[in-house]
This record gives sequence, structure tokens and C-alpha cells, in this order.
Amino acid sequence: MSVVDLPLEVRGAACSPAAAESLSARDADLLARRLKAVADPARLRLLSIVAAHDGGEACVCDLQEPLGLSQPTVSHHLRVLTDAGLLSRSKRGTWAYYALVPGAADALGAAFLASVAPRGR
Amino acid sequence: MSVVDLPLEVRGAACSPAAAESLSARDADLLARRLKAVADPARLRLLSIVAAHDGGEACVCDLQEPLGLSQPTVSHHLRVLTDAGLLSRSKRGTWAYYALVPGAADALGAAFLASVAPRGR
Repeated sequence: MSVVDLPLEVRGAACSPAAAESLSARDADLLARRLKAVADPARLRLLSIVAAHDGGEACVCDLQEPLGLSQPTVSHHLRVLTDAGLLSRSKRGTWAYYALVPGAADALGAAFLASVAPRGR
Repeated sequence: MSVVDLPLEVRGAACSPAAAESLSARDADLLARRLKAVADPARLRLLSIVAAHDGGEACVCDLQEPLGLSQPTVSHHLRVLTDAGLLSRSKRGTWAYYALVPGAADALGAAFLASVAPRGR
């Protein structure tokens, strides 16, 4: 049985207080999944291009050429970012438009920094 | 030839101003590499455990048990974090000790947020 399977009040006795205050296995899994969504050069560039567009929204028709990737590859990366809650997608006429979800990147950055900040000091 | 291969003064003419202000392919590669180092549950927990330890430093002998991973696996993850500039390693006697590199996690978080922030507004 690992420490993270124990109820919180038992963990303090089972290991050092410092270890008990660190990121849980479950929280680490969730955070790693969100970080993996952005730990990719094409996806970082997509986020950056959308952010730099007027109104913070970009047509999918403007996202393929700057990256030099095929349309299915760009669609895959956009889906990963949308599933991760970083981009929103709205369809208008022929095209889909992508926008940054307000606060989502900030929240991810803050969650990462909180996970490596000393606790309870 | 991709936009990023062009000299800066040519890019503005070759594509929309918004795209010219977004993250370059090279910067995206570098940032994605640093984010990949932390986009892993075991590595996030290692950073968190080191951060939570007294004095912000942990003996490698205290890092294996909380993770429930083999010693070679823990060593691999510690090497990735050290190579990424997030942890420093010092050997004293039998054991290696790991500490957070001051400011490194903050710098990574800031670089990510800067990459998705609208430019020049």
C-alpha cells in the first residue's frame, strides 16, 4: 500500500510531515495531463498564434499555413488543446474559430507553480 | 521556406502582423522541451517533495519510497529534472542531495504565460 492510498490523518504518522504536504499522486496525474497538452512545439505555437490574432480569436483557415503542418495534424493539435480546456471552438459558416479560454493558461501556470512551492511555510 | 526562416523585417510583409508577433518555431521547441520535463506525474511529485523538505533540499534516499518507483526510475526522473535546470544535485558522503534551482520553476511558468499572452497590446 502506498502512502497516497492512506487516509490523510494516517499519512502524517506513516511518513515525514514534509512528504505528507507534497503533491498527491492523483493531483500529479491531473496536472501532468494538462502540462502534456502544452508541452509540444506545435501546440504552443497554435496557442501563441490564436493569442496574437485580433480579438484573440483565429479562424482554423489561418492556423495551418504558419505551422507548415498538414490539416489533419493541425486539427489533432487543436483538439488536444480544446479537450484540455485551453481553447474554445465555435463554428460559424464554413469555418471553425478558436479562442483562448480566459484564465485557463494562467490557471495552469499557477497550478504548476503551486505544486513546486514549499507548503505550509 | 517557412515564415520563421525569413529575416524579421521580411516576415511582416509575408504574413499578417498578428502571426509575425507569435512564438517562433525555435522558441516553441525550446519551451516545449522544458515543459516536457515537468509534464510527468513522477517528476512533478519529485519537485513537490523536494520543495516540501526542510531547507528545500532532499536526500535521494528520501525520494524513492514516497513515489513507490524503482531506484533506477527515480534516478532517471531526477536526471531529467537536473538536465532541465529545475533541480541541482550535490553529493555529500554516500548520498546525493537535490534542491530546487531558485527561480527556475517561476521562469518556466513565466515563459509559458508569455508565450500565450497577446503580444504588443
